[in-house]
Amino acid sequence: MKIALAQLNYLIGDFEGNLAKITGAVSEATSKGADLVVFSELAICGYPPLDLLERKEFINTCNHSIEKLATILDPGTGVLVGSPEFNTSSDGKLLFNSAFFLYEGKVQQVFRKALLPTYDIFDEYRYFEPNREFNILHFKKRKLAVTICEDLWDEQPFENEFSRSMLYTTNPLEELHKLGPEAIINMAASPFAHRKMEIKQSIFTGKAARYNLPVLYCNQVGAQTELIFEGGSMAIHPSGRVASKLPLFREDILISDLNELIESEPPLSTGVIPDRIGTMADALICGIRDYFGKLGFKTATLGLSGGIDSAVTLALAAEALGQENIHVLLLPSQYSSDHSVNDSVEMAQNLGIKYNILPIEALFYQFRKSLEPLFENLPEDITEENIQARIRGTLLMALSNKLGNILLNTSNKSETAVGYGTLYGDMSGGLSILGDLFKTDVYLMAEYLNREKEVIPVNIISKPPSAELRPNQKDSDSLPPYEELDQILEAYIEKQLPLEKVTEMGYEPELVNRIIRMVNQNEYKRYQTPPILRISSKAFGVGRRLPLVARY
Amino acid sequence: MKIALAQLNYLIGDFEGNLAKITGAVSEATSKGADLVVFSELAICGYPPLDLLERKEFINTCNHSIEKLATILDPGTGVLVGSPEFNTSSDGKLLFNSAFFLYEGKVQQVFRKALLPTYDIFDEYRYFEPNREFNILHFKKRKLAVTICEDLWDEQPFENEFSRSMLYTTNPLEELHKLGPEAIINMAASPFAHRKMEIKQSIFTGKAARYNLPVLYCNQVGAQTELIFEGGSMAIHPSGRVASKLPLFREDILISDLNELIESEPPLSTGVIPDRIGTMADALICGIRDYFGKLGFKTATLGLSGGIDSAVTLALAAEALGQENIHVLLLPSQYSSDHSVNDSVEMAQNLGIKYNILPIEALFYQFRKSLEPLFENLPEDITEENIQARIRGTLLMALSNKLGNILLNTSNKSETAVGYGTLYGDMSGGLSILGDLFKTDVYLMAEYLNREKEVIPVNIISKPPSAELRPNQKDSDSLPPYEELDQILEAYIEKQLPLEKVTEMGYEPELVNRIIRMVNQNEYKRYQTPPILRISSKAFGVGRRLPLVARY
Repeated sequence: MKIALAQLNYLIGDFEGNLAKITGAVSEATSKGADLVVFSELAICGYPPLDLLERKEFINTCNHSIEKLATILDPGTGVLVGSPEFNTSSDGKLLFNSAFFLYEGKVQQVFRKALLPTYDIFDEYRYFEPNREFNILHFKKRKLAVTICEDLWDEQPFENEFSRSMLYTTNPLEELHKLGPEAIINMAASPFAHRKMEIKQSIFTGKAARYNLPVLYCNQVGAQTELIFEGGSMAIHPSGRVASKLPLFREDILISDLNELIESEPPLSTGVIPDRIGTMADALICGIRDYFGKLGFKTATLGLSGGIDSAVTLALAAEALGQENIHVLLLPSQYSSDHSVNDSVEMAQNLGIKYNILPIEALFYQFRKSLEPLFENLPEDITEENIQARIRGTLLMALSNKLGNILLNTSNKSETAVGYGTLYGDMSGGLSILGDLFKTDVYLMAEYLNREKEVIPVNIISKPPSAELRPNQKDSDSLPPYEELDQILEAYIEKQLPLEKVTEMGYEPELVNRIIRMVNQNEYKRYQTPPILRISSKAFGVGRRLPLVARY
Repeated sequence: MKIALAQLNYLIGDFEGNLAKITGAVSEATSKGADLVVFSELAICGYPPLDLLERKEFINTCNHSIEKLATILDPGTGVLVGSPEFNTSSDGKLLFNSAFFLYEGKVQQVFRKALLPTYDIFDEYRYFEPNREFNILHFKKRKLAVTICEDLWDEQPFENEFSRSMLYTTNPLEELHKLGPEAIINMAASPFAHRKMEIKQSIFTGKAARYNLPVLYCNQVGAQTELIFEGGSMAIHPSGRVASKLPLFREDILISDLNELIESEPPLSTGVIPDRIGTMADALICGIRDYFGKLGFKTATLGLSGGIDSAVTLALAAEALGQENIHVLLLPSQYSSDHSVNDSVEMAQNLGIKYNILPIEALFYQFRKSLEPLFENLPEDITEENIQARIRGTLLMALSNKLGNILLNTSNKSETAVGYGTLYGDMSGGLSILGDLFKTDVYLMAEYLNREKEVIPVNIISKPPSAELRPNQKDSDSLPPYEELDQILEAYIEKQLPLEKVTEMGYEPELVNRIIRMVNQNEYKRYQTPPILRISSKAFGVGRRLPLVARY
């Protein structure tokens, strides 16, 4: 039996578009001899639909799509497709997260997800009742265990010192294994995280080896607002070796012969884990492209400051959208150094990007003049720095409004963490590209983007970082070196270590305490930031929920 | 036996402060003869702690607080206090949401929450494992059923046509009832919703009547960022009649004699449900006061436009913070009518509020001049309107930065719904006061606030609403009358009705479709708005999660 894994990029709620993609993939796979075509979790509507699942008309449309799909498909091909399903029993949540098996023109069987991730960015128990009854798929004389994403994650990799491996009290694979399956199918929507590629693969290869069964893993691909799904669907040999794997961040179909997969020698490859920074770049490019493409936008605006963050954002955006679709503004003030403008012009010219230079001194002067009646006896402070940032934000948004563009936010994770940024100023934008990259990774990204030719002028990479909001300002005036800051931030935010453990890494308690306080006190700023393309396992945004008013 | 319900206002994570409040309440209740003092859900740390529950040091501190509390209390008084508890079994979530029974200097027994709300603003299954074993509290020859909040909500009131009454597959009270309790204790953190006061009370009175048992309901009081807990703790007679009830939005202790409660005749009162708009005003005042007080801020800034939203916001803020703690700006442009300034001045003078008038023409002129090289051949459009709003936002934030104030946002729910507002302009602020009030309720609120004397000049209430961002602009140019708009919005957003059902209410499909599209297309703006004081059962913010990139 030949099984096809269709790794597709869905638009949430675009039922016609998604259905067309699904039927197209079935046709292609059938023409190549596939007996069974497998799609990813909730493929019919796209993952994650969030509170659209609370609307009856949305679920009705999912049902109609499934019914329509069943009737238009080649009746000789089996199809496994994910969709929400009404829970017809009298109690529990209204829906199941289900896999529909379509064959011979109708729905033959339904398999329901048992383990519902409800942590980080996942909220599945908000909508779904967990499955408690396990059945096997009998198809063409084969017995297949159909699982949905988290169903294989009964054992979780430890994320931090206060997480645990057994999050659930049921183990779907143990239950299914009693029914004697010959292969495990997993329909997933598993988002990208740059340090988790190896762990994720080991979850699937580990299950194959443990049960001595092939695993066929079909993942969603493409970005859904801040979440980026890498694809990387795999056919895994019963030995736990990866037999074949689809590319990342691209639609594709993988067809495997189940008999061959079971009977062949173990493959040599254990599955190549690609370069961290390169994969991160691909993820961000995919994130930008899909955000624009799925919203129906083509063009972007951003402010080029002469610093590394806006330079890296521009280089990634140019690759995602095409350099002809970006219009940048250079917005120097009296505190901007000459090299900031020169470096930015050089960068725009390197890429052939349209740019304008709009000095902000006159506006800054006018704001101070307007505020004179209120401020006349008060000393200059951060207020005047914020005014400059907000003038820039207003000019960028004006261009974005006038041209029907989307403004790209250029903040990185380090500054977002410590609140080193101005709300409604440099924290503006429709989408944050680098908000999940610590500054040290932004530098690595710059070098990666320059790997073939100098896209980002080296001077932008080598000069000391500065906000240039007052004379001779440097980031290092108020922050420790980024190598230290990022280590502390990663330990506190991503590994969730307490102060004492961070201190044990070799940092002064006073410094660690100051950094942690900055992180905690700036929750209110992060509440109002744009969605951040998520590339780590703990990004700012929907996956990290902290009270704004609290003492901690 | 005398049971005290301690209705207190906690600060999340302020372990010392919360402990001091708890021990103070125990002393007071003990001095009045209480045998048992009951506190609300997660009282030890405050509700909702959100992802602080994912930090080991936070849970350790909860444990230490419980231990400390046990040793310092009068050993002759029993105490029931809510706290997170480590789940020591090898699987399931790391924590339970528990009630600790303290007596004679130590923890005697622990009761765990079984029904974990995971919908709207609730994310409890993100952190907690549900309880599956039920025990009773034996204390001073009485048997008491100890439940935590949602444990009594096995039957949910229908919120909309696509919700169901039985969200859970277990029924804690049925289990506990088998153990023969003589009273039901409920430790809650149940937030306010202006149309749900009656339904909420009926949940508790219904349980009392159904089991013919007294119910002692202790609710948290006070605001936690956007969530406002009204208190309203109650002692309910076995007949289902309310025997006594604590006030709303205020700390207090209710002491009931259990024997008397059981043996007395049914009280006559069914529990008074207070006036909707008046309660809403009290809720918002509580929300403002606690946001500032718990953050350690005293003073606020806001922009007074001459319209009703900023006038109502100012009147509420003045009551919450004191008129001497507010500094308003009037920011007229060439499109502002004379009455806008005059009405605003009158309002500020009515309340004795400090104000400044800063005309924005010169700044608006300077922005257009700066943008001339880019915009010279392009027609005026919404860009120029947004620039004015962002100039105002920048001036208000400048004052807020300079004085260390918090800027209050003045947007209402109707305009937030349809995207009638400028990001980084009038959508700025630290806290949105009216973001969960439809415009028609803002008018009712204005009349309520004027009930004793004219705080808000009648001209502000009677003139047609306008953003005044271009000559002779009126809200009704682009929106239907607010009476219609609000009905459509409430049907679509709060009742979650589909287009056809909204149309059946008597509106043109074309109009309904246009409104729904406006709501859906402006999700990206709401993503970046300040936290909104929640006073309905479906507010914009954390309780409503929709994809930004989707087709629907």
